[in-house]
Amino acid sequence: MKIAIMGFGTVGSGVKEVLELNREQVEKKGGDKIEIKYILARREHIPGVPDELITTDFSVIEKDPEVELVVEAIGGIHPAYEYIMSCLEKGKHVVSSNKAVVDACGSKLMRTAKEHNCNFYFEASVGGGIPVIRTLYHNYAGENVTEITGILNGTSNFILSKMKDEGSTFADTLKEAQRLGYAEKDPSADVDGFDTSRKTAILLSMSSGMRCRHEDIHTEGIREISDMDMAYAKQMDYHIRLLGSVETVEDKYFAYVAPIMVGKDDPLYFVNGVYNGIRIVGNCLGNTMLYGKGAGKLPTASAVVSDIIAAARHKNHFQGIGWSEKMIEIEPMGSNAFRYFLRIEGTAEGIQKELKSYFLDGGEALKPIVLKGRQDEFAIVSDILFEEDFLARLRGFEEETGRRVFHFIRMKGMTEE
Amino acid sequence: MKIAIMGFGTVGSGVKEVLELNREQVEKKGGDKIEIKYILARREHIPGVPDELITTDFSVIEKDPEVELVVEAIGGIHPAYEYIMSCLEKGKHVVSSNKAVVDACGSKLMRTAKEHNCNFYFEASVGGGIPVIRTLYHNYAGENVTEITGILNGTSNFILSKMKDEGSTFADTLKEAQRLGYAEKDPSADVDGFDTSRKTAILLSMSSGMRCRHEDIHTEGIREISDMDMAYAKQMDYHIRLLGSVETVEDKYFAYVAPIMVGKDDPLYFVNGVYNGIRIVGNCLGNTMLYGKGAGKLPTASAVVSDIIAAARHKNHFQGIGWSEKMIEIEPMGSNAFRYFLRIEGTAEGIQKELKSYFLDGGEALKPIVLKGRQDEFAIVSDILFEEDFLARLRGFEEETGRRVFHFIRMKGMTEE
Repeated sequence: MKIAIMGFGTVGSGVKEVLELNREQVEKKGGDKIEIKYILARREHIPGVPDELITTDFSVIEKDPEVELVVEAIGGIHPAYEYIMSCLEKGKHVVSSNKAVVDACGSKLMRTAKEHNCNFYFEASVGGGIPVIRTLYHNYAGENVTEITGILNGTSNFILSKMKDEGSTFADTLKEAQRLGYAEKDPSADVDGFDTSRKTAILLSMSSGMRCRHEDIHTEGIREISDMDMAYAKQMDYHIRLLGSVETVEDKYFAYVAPIMVGKDDPLYFVNGVYNGIRIVGNCLGNTMLYGKGAGKLPTASAVVSDIIAAARHKNHFQGIGWSEKMIEIEPMGSNAFRYFLRIEGTAEGIQKELKSYFLDGGEALKPIVLKGRQDEFAIVSDILFEEDFLARLRGFEEETGRRVFHFIRMKGMTEE
Repeated sequence: MKIAIMGFGTVGSGVKEVLELNREQVEKKGGDKIEIKYILARREHIPGVPDELITTDFSVIEKDPEVELVVEAIGGIHPAYEYIMSCLEKGKHVVSSNKAVVDACGSKLMRTAKEHNCNFYFEASVGGGIPVIRTLYHNYAGENVTEITGILNGTSNFILSKMKDEGSTFADTLKEAQRLGYAEKDPSADVDGFDTSRKTAILLSMSSGMRCRHEDIHTEGIREISDMDMAYAKQMDYHIRLLGSVETVEDKYFAYVAPIMVGKDDPLYFVNGVYNGIRIVGNCLGNTMLYGKGAGKLPTASAVVSDIIAAARHKNHFQGIGWSEKMIEIEPMGSNAFRYFLRIEGTAEGIQKELKSYFLDGGEALKPIVLKGRQDEFAIVSDILFEEDFLARLRGFEEETGRRVFHFIRMKGMTEE
């Protein structure tokens, strides 16, 4: 099978590297020789790449009937979308690692692939080397997926893990992550949750079979997480993780991206540093978790290569991994329910009645959490409350007591079947 | 698609339950109505099952050309093997949850499926609801898999987890597990490692593409693990896990089943109770781990149903999940290398020179581990030694010092790429 690689950055060059490194295995499993005929790049010369492979002109690839498969590793929406569309319309299989284009235009590309009896694969777009797209397609095919919750961004997880381990601030830890190459110069996509949000949208589309736009998912990042929050998390034996989560309850869909306090009962507690973890809950399978490297040149490229092999195995067999063009409706953030961790001004003395009536439904015992040596604030953990209700209670509490609530963080446990 | 279910125990009845519970989802994803035409059972009447579905005669199923797929949930090798073979020869797809028959006869069944252009699927034979077979087939297709190490038996993991948590003995914990229904009356397959050994053989066959017999895998169970061992593990912050492990080093294959001390650097450390975890290492993907319920009626049945959907999606498309008939050669146990945890009679005083020269290559500092209040024994952790060499050193040490080594347990860390 002759292929073209479009885009020769980290992922594109990684694909060439993996195809060369594991050539024997790839050809044995794919049942076909995989030959790179073109590399679409911006420059005409790339060190270590024969000039005759390189082209700067997409139409050369598009028009060559020998090219049966195209890897799209350009990133961004334009011109990636137009290039993919044009290849699919010519019956070429396309493998993409590009979450932006899959999130924004996935359903149109999937329909076009179906119309031209070729495959559009995108395993590498979520979770890098973690086998989540195919697991949802194959192993969860007969399940009603009730929840997917994941640590989907290695940079944020690295920063949060390091803040907890070292007691450092967000700003200092971000700088350190940038110095080590784990965070980009403009870290917004990672630390403000947009990368996680796109991946979450793709996971919800896969599990629901409907189109989901990441713009419709309530998204918060980790900039507001302070060293004080982490000190409490440490004392309580929780981790703060940036989670992307989707839930289905009787045809209603819930989704959000936010920093969440995760306890030891959830396997996501144990996913540290740059690793990613994706917990999937099915009505029969129960809880499963997939764990691995969510980014990086070789893991991501290996996921692309697994798609190339899938295409070689399904040359004339449309697989239909994906979703329809029907838009999904996501319930408003206020209808999600959480426990809340709240940091409150002063001490709990004198306001116990209010704490109970606003956050504990008046019933349960109040156990204020106090950091050693701190008199100026304390924390509590609320009952499970709907977010809309919680926010109203928060305002009411602040007004009635005159106490400021410095910060709140949502908490979530594992749903046991 | 009309199907037959052979065997109506836990798995067989679970398959019927999942097909009914998730009917809409299954038919949508498989693109076909799935209708149970026969249930092969020992009895002619089963409460809750219409009589006309039940047959006690396999030839009825075999001869009915309407039956396109057969689920084998009989267990054991005979007559499961003969039934599967006969169905494949008639071009019927077969889905099996039976690790014994996959381990003993898999390669013959796979060849027969290929010859008759139908599929033989066995996702549920290893790891129950954990998607390991398909992940190896699809996502690791282009990888050189260097290691697979798993907690593959929930009963053993439950017993070991409970022994550590409660400080109880193996015998008492086994009784408790039997009382709770987690262990069978005859627990040998679980606690002596044979169940893990069969699953390990299947994983090695999948990753190597060659046939592996579980009889060729060095297999130890957990009966020898004592409450004293657990007391040390607790003090050292390790877990003792029954692991099945395969490694590939330059065309040499290593495999074993044994209780291993696992530290926090390995995600298998966090897999508690009846959960299973399978860590797979690829040369490009690095470490990934799959986590979930390794047994149980609905998780196992759901894996079978995912295979039924795969068959519906690949009616005229042979997938070739499996391995060849070429036998693999496994290196002898003595050529595996580990650190060793050793419990030694007396105190370390007076034999420090011998401890170092036998187990620490004379170099590093010796840190004896002593349980609070115990003068009669202590423990050390050796350097990494080849097992053959280690066993010789063990004999030499006992002879030279006259001290008994009460017990040793192998230790293993995660291979970082």
